[in-house]
Amino acid sequence: MPIHTLQSDNYTIEAGNIEESSFSQLLNRFSDSKKVIIVDENTHEYCLEFLITQFEELTDAEVMLLPAGEENKVLEVSFQVWEALSEYRVGRSDLIINLGGGVITDMGGFIASVFKRGVHFINIPTTLLAMVDASVGGKTGIDLGPYKNQLGVFNTPDAVYIDKRFLSSLPESEWLNGYAEMLKHAIVFSKTHWKTIHAKTPSQITEEDIIESIAIKNQIVLADPKENGIRKLLNFGHTAGHAIEGYLLGTESPVPHGIAVAWGMSMEAELAFKTGVLNEVDRAWIQSVLASHFPPLPDFTPVKQELLSLMTNDKKNKSGKVSFVFPSEIGQADVNYSFDVDAPVLESLFFKSSDLY
Amino acid sequence: MPIHTLQSDNYTIEAGNIEESSFSQLLNRFSDSKKVIIVDENTHEYCLEFLITQFEELTDAEVMLLPAGEENKVLEVSFQVWEALSEYRVGRSDLIINLGGGVITDMGGFIASVFKRGVHFINIPTTLLAMVDASVGGKTGIDLGPYKNQLGVFNTPDAVYIDKRFLSSLPESEWLNGYAEMLKHAIVFSKTHWKTIHAKTPSQITEEDIIESIAIKNQIVLADPKENGIRKLLNFGHTAGHAIEGYLLGTESPVPHGIAVAWGMSMEAELAFKTGVLNEVDRAWIQSVLASHFPPLPDFTPVKQELLSLMTNDKKNKSGKVSFVFPSEIGQADVNYSFDVDAPVLESLFFKSSDLY
Repeated sequence: MPIHTLQSDNYTIEAGNIEESSFSQLLNRFSDSKKVIIVDENTHEYCLEFLITQFEELTDAEVMLLPAGEENKVLEVSFQVWEALSEYRVGRSDLIINLGGGVITDMGGFIASVFKRGVHFINIPTTLLAMVDASVGGKTGIDLGPYKNQLGVFNTPDAVYIDKRFLSSLPESEWLNGYAEMLKHAIVFSKTHWKTIHAKTPSQITEEDIIESIAIKNQIVLADPKENGIRKLLNFGHTAGHAIEGYLLGTESPVPHGIAVAWGMSMEAELAFKTGVLNEVDRAWIQSVLASHFPPLPDFTPVKQELLSLMTNDKKNKSGKVSFVFPSEIGQADVNYSFDVDAPVLESLFFKSSDLY
Repeated sequence: MPIHTLQSDNYTIEAGNIEESSFSQLLNRFSDSKKVIIVDENTHEYCLEFLITQFEELTDAEVMLLPAGEENKVLEVSFQVWEALSEYRVGRSDLIINLGGGVITDMGGFIASVFKRGVHFINIPTTLLAMVDASVGGKTGIDLGPYKNQLGVFNTPDAVYIDKRFLSSLPESEWLNGYAEMLKHAIVFSKTHWKTIHAKTPSQITEEDIIESIAIKNQIVLADPKENGIRKLLNFGHTAGHAIEGYLLGTESPVPHGIAVAWGMSMEAELAFKTGVLNEVDRAWIQSVLASHFPPLPDFTPVKQELLSLMTNDKKNKSGKVSFVFPSEIGQADVNYSFDVDAPVLESLFFKSSDLY
């Protein structure tokens, strides 16, 4: 299929075979500049050669190999890249190419945005999660201890290229990561998208589905780039999800972002139902679809206090409050449902899957 | 004198007694928010009590004490503040107050801009340098090894308050730091300002002089916030000056920013003269005024290669080139004089004071 172009803030997202996209022209504009490709161990093995083979302008690009995994989306790794960029004399007119999943696009975007107060960067996401979520919306960031994306800036890349062929080497768990965010886009904004994707296995997801999910996120982000209002919709499942992900990151059994968000959506759907916002049918539909794709929700009651405490530190919250996005039905949601951290109703977040099904 | 207000990008700079400024109203707007005051050892001793005495809303502000000095404008210190802000549960609706010299306003601005993708901050500069330079223009940043302001973002504070009474405890060397930047503003933009200030001792500098110098910088910055063109004027003396400052930072005898810039202006005036841009009379006037206020220019010939190498890494440069701002006469300058790093004419940067006077 031909290149599909979405116009975002001040850049374009192009989906399709990357060699048919505008990437060649962009590289021509940077023909006199240094090119740096940031990869992790996975994209170094599975994606880099393909990219360089397609674009000979990248033959002498400097490749910076970072350790894979969310636990490496940290200041120490960023520091090493900044030192390497300094040593390589990268300047404001040079180009950083982030080739990887959300860790690489989030951290690479942050590294580029902060280095010399901003050098050019583009994102080539290579996971479903990075394609439908991290690569659009102008958020960059790294984690600080248990706090996800605690350090970062709003800054947009020069361009984003979505080539589904990069997904061919992904394990199923990685597909699920992105699928959770696609379901989220559907729940907060589009019942049509929900109907199209909710019963698919990850490998049945098409390029059209990916483009539709990006288009939803793009539409929301364009309406509210700095997250003062409607953009908060995208935080559905993330108040609880980020707390779970951050908490488990410090334990023996960390979980991928998508699983944490799927659990978070299930928990927050329960709270939305208990507070009378979400109707019973759609609450059941959301929870059963999530349960059919994702691992069962563990019993978080023993660490309730730790999770609630992490939730109060969420970027979305005013002091001492916990805020949520609640769907009223599938395809429709509202922001700014705010509770005191010790409000009894928050107990309803901590149910077990076995209570329901 | 009454409060003097300068309108910058999307904030105001107010000069005068701070208790008569809009600071009270601003604190009222943040009455439900956490307030964090970032100080260094000096402002902790000399400025903090005065500020808190004037504004009872600050009585329970959290005070974060950082080690003083340019060598502490680094990632490690920023990291500690970010951890403390996380622990103190600071959120996007809270307020950081940077009370200090350029190190505190640059680093505090960076810390605030990057924390949770940006929390509110204001600057209360307490040195002449911070008043006339660091507090206006939306540049935040920290150093990385020998590279000055290598990490940072463009971001504006909510407000800047200039109260000359904070300068009363400054040692003379600190006055010179700011005076160098005031002379720079005069050389690149205003012969009137030059005539007013060039023969003053630092303690003769008036509030009107400070306001005039800020107004010049503000005018330049407003015309080109992201430094694509005319704003580069403000880099006069800084191509050589930053290299000297960065180089000496790693030795036993670091120099303050203002002295490095004064030396840099002298060196770059020489190069501007040798390339036929600056007239002989004004070159002599610039160099003799600088020599009358600042320590004599050392002989940097033995470390020429190190300094030139640092200059090529300056943020202003394209790969392998060194760029300068050249005055053609006092009050008039142009940007983008660019040379290959091995161009013979660059030798003329490395003259000794004794060659001239």
